[in-house]
Order: sequence, then structure tokens, then C-alpha cells
Amino acid sequence: MCELLGMSANVPTDICFSFKGLKERGGRTGPHKDGWGVAFYDNKGVCTFKDALPSYQSEIARLVSDYPIKSCAVVAHVRQANRGRVALENTHPFTRELWGRYWTYAHNGQLNGYSKLAVDRFTPVGTTDSERAFCYLLSELARRYPNKAPSRKTAFKFIQRQCRILQKLGVFNMMLTDGEYLLTYCTTKLYWITRRAPFGIARLSDVDVDIDFTKETTPNDVVTIIATEPLTNNEQWHKMQTGESQLFYYGEPLS
Amino acid sequence: MCELLGMSANVPTDICFSFKGLKERGGRTGPHKDGWGVAFYDNKGVCTFKDALPSYQSEIARLVSDYPIKSCAVVAHVRQANRGRVALENTHPFTRELWGRYWTYAHNGQLNGYSKLAVDRFTPVGTTDSERAFCYLLSELARRYPNKAPSRKTAFKFIQRQCRILQKLGVFNMMLTDGEYLLTYCTTKLYWITRRAPFGIARLSDVDVDIDFTKETTPNDVVTIIATEPLTNNEQWHKMQTGESQLFYYGEPLS
Repeated sequence: MCELLGMSANVPTDICFSFKGLKERGGRTGPHKDGWGVAFYDNKGVCTFKDALPSYQSEIARLVSDYPIKSCAVVAHVRQANRGRVALENTHPFTRELWGRYWTYAHNGQLNGYSKLAVDRFTPVGTTDSERAFCYLLSELARRYPNKAPSRKTAFKFIQRQCRILQKLGVFNMMLTDGEYLLTYCTTKLYWITRRAPFGIARLSDVDVDIDFTKETTPNDVVTIIATEPLTNNEQWHKMQTGESQLFYYGEPLS
Repeated sequence: MCELLGMSANVPTDICFSFKGLKERGGRTGPHKDGWGVAFYDNKGVCTFKDALPSYQSEIARLVSDYPIKSCAVVAHVRQANRGRVALENTHPFTRELWGRYWTYAHNGQLNGYSKLAVDRFTPVGTTDSERAFCYLLSELARRYPNKAPSRKTAFKFIQRQCRILQKLGVFNMMLTDGEYLLTYCTTKLYWITRRAPFGIARLSDVDVDIDFTKETTPNDVVTIIATEPLTNNEQWHKMQTGESQLFYYGEPLS
């Protein structure tokens, strides 16, 4: 299995604090040693760091955890390979362009019969069930709206419904973003927390690090963090239920 | 204008030496201060580092120039903006997936009337002439072979012919790779050099650094470097002519 980490925020925010926790799970406090990756959006652009090495040993992961890259939408992943060998092309997150937007996705879980998922417009490069499911979701979306892009909210709602089909194939916890919206889908394990004023102090579970958010934020900041397991041990995280999905827009959970 | 740097090699090779030279041109020895990027292939996977900051000041560029990432196909770029504002989404190289392969491209030059270039399957995310031309090339390729992917050599030969159409719109120096093949096209300025045994010592033009390749290589290594301007001042680089293109395969120039 793997671990997911995501962020949706209304102001460009760095993810150094949370990533420090996740990075340790990539081979030290957790068994997810088969590669890692993180995608940062800056408006419509996206920059993705990835590596087939364990994150806790990776020079690139060290840079990402120390150097504050500010973003309103982040998707990160540490991998424990099940379907597909350890290789860069099998390392999450995955990105494709559709309708002049980059869509970025990461998955935690395991799917059966995934090779039968119809893909046409988008084709997997690697051999994971995860990337195949992603190409399926975007191929379905493009097929549903062949002539004109729908509103992005409509597009995400459509994907949300398709996730129910994937859920039938196994474990499908995932995050998908276009840099503004961020969709989560849970079948077994996914937590999120929205931090806003008044901010407090948070303490990481995986390393002895805490942060005083009052010093790092302004009163209007809204920052949601999504993770497979809560990353802090002194805050209340929202546990998602099987089949539950949640769409965020610049940090705010949408109903 | 901008500067390009590419590598095609028959064994995974790092580009630290050449990138050290290019990085300086991104704001110090050259005016290309409007962002930079570099894509490294590892088999079918690709990892792209990019940043809208000047490369000579970028923390991420420093990592890339110090930390040996080994690859058989690299495309790098430092940008001096002309069409399209300074922004991550306008930063080269650009990547799209087609037929289960990642195609990565960078451009140096300036095109007129580029908004009329027909794009359908692939759409620009940013506002540069460069990305539009890339989406045009891949859209044409997908349109030419709607049912079945041709051999990749055939695909590259097709793109080579399409480049002649783009040349009519202005200055079009470019590199395009799928991780195995690397295509170059020149209208004004592009140089390449193939290094193979017996290897010697190379000296960078932009910083006081030299390297003894005999210590870094094995006798069977074949490594081609492509650049807008020669990066070393003690070697003979091949200067490409207007309208000339060259396809490389794992380091070897193909006829």
C-alpha cells in the first residue's frame, strides 16, 4: 500500500512541515520505500519532483522538505509497490493535460481486473493499476464531454461518480487536482483537517517537530491537509468513510 | 530568446557538468533569467524540475547541478521571456503523453501567427508560442495516425517534416525526446558534440570548471550533448545549419 498527502489552500503555502512527516514514512517510520513524488501547482503550472528511491534517503526529498515551495494545491505520495515494479514511470503522482489544464492524481490501494478499464484518449506509461485508473477517469471525462469542456466543478462531480465504479474493483483512496479544485475519494483510509484562525501549535507524529501556525500564517488563511493517516497527534482530523468523497476549492471543503 | 541543452546517451549519464554551464547563463553570464527547467528520463518515466526563478539563483537548480541524476535522455532550457509572461506554466520543457509515452520538448526562438496553429488533441496550458507549437506538432502526429501508433522512428520523421512548417513562422530551434530518440531542429543556432572513447578533458566556457571524462566513463559510452552555444571552449562542436535536423538514438546520430 502507499500513503497520500495533499494540500488545498487559499494562499500559496508551503508543505515542508507535513512533508517532513510523510518523508519519514517512506522507508523509516513506514514501509513505503518504493519511490515517492510531490506535485506543486503555481497557478496553472505544475512542478513535480519524483524519485524511485525511498523518500527518507532521497536528496531530492530532503530539498523538498527543507525548501519552502509555496503552492495552493499539492499532491504527494510515498509508494509501497504492489502492482507494477519499482520504477520512475510507476511513481505517483501522475499528470495529464486535458482542455488546457494539468490534472494531477495519486492513488492508495489495490485494484483487481484493472487491465479491463477502457482507456483511449489517455494511455498509461507505466504498469500500475493506479495510473490505469487515472487514465480511465480522464478518458471517461473526455468521452462524456467530447465537444466542449464543462465547468470544472461539473467535471469533478462527474469524476466523483466514476470513482464509485473503481471502488468495486478494490481499494481506491485517491486525490485529484487541477490546481484549484482538489477531489478526494475514500474507500478505506483518508483523513483531512482544515486549519484556519485562530491557529495553534501542531506536533508531528513521525518526527519530533512542532510548528506554531500563528507565526506562519495570516488571519485569512485557510489550509486543508489530506493524509492517509493523521500527520499530527494533537489535532482533530476528519476521518472519511467508505465511499465518501470531498471536493475542496482553495482550501474550503465544498458541500 | 532562450538557451537549450540536451543529452542523448547509451548509458545513464549525469548532466551536472553541462548544466553547471547552462545555469550560469540563466541570469549571470547570460540574460535568460525568466525561469528554467530540466527533464530527466529514466526508461519510460520522466522527472522534470522547473522554476520561474533565474537558474543561477535557484535552490532547485543548485541541487540539479550538484546531485548526479543519471539519464539517457535530458532536455533543459533557460528562458528569456518574449511571448508569454514569466510563470511556471510558461516554463520549458513541456511534456505530454501520447500512445503511452511521455514526449518532452523545449524551444528557442520566436514565432509569428502562432495562435492560428491548429491544436485539438493537445491544448496549451500557458500562453507561449513554444507550447502552442509543441501541441500543434503532437496534435498533427495524432491526427496523421488516428488508429495505430506508427514506429517511433516514423513518428519522429513525421515531426521533422512538420518543423519545416513552423520554421516559416519565425525562429524555431527545438529539441524533442521520448526518452529513447531525441530530435533536434535548427533554424538559427544549435550545436552538438558526440563524445566517445578516447575521452579527454573538457573545459566549461561559463565557469572555471573542467572535467576529465576518462575518469567518468567506460570505453563503450557514447554521449551526445546539444546546446544553443557550445558549452566548452576546447572541443569541436558541430554547428547545425538553417533547416537542418538531426535525430539521435541513445547517443548515436542517425543518418
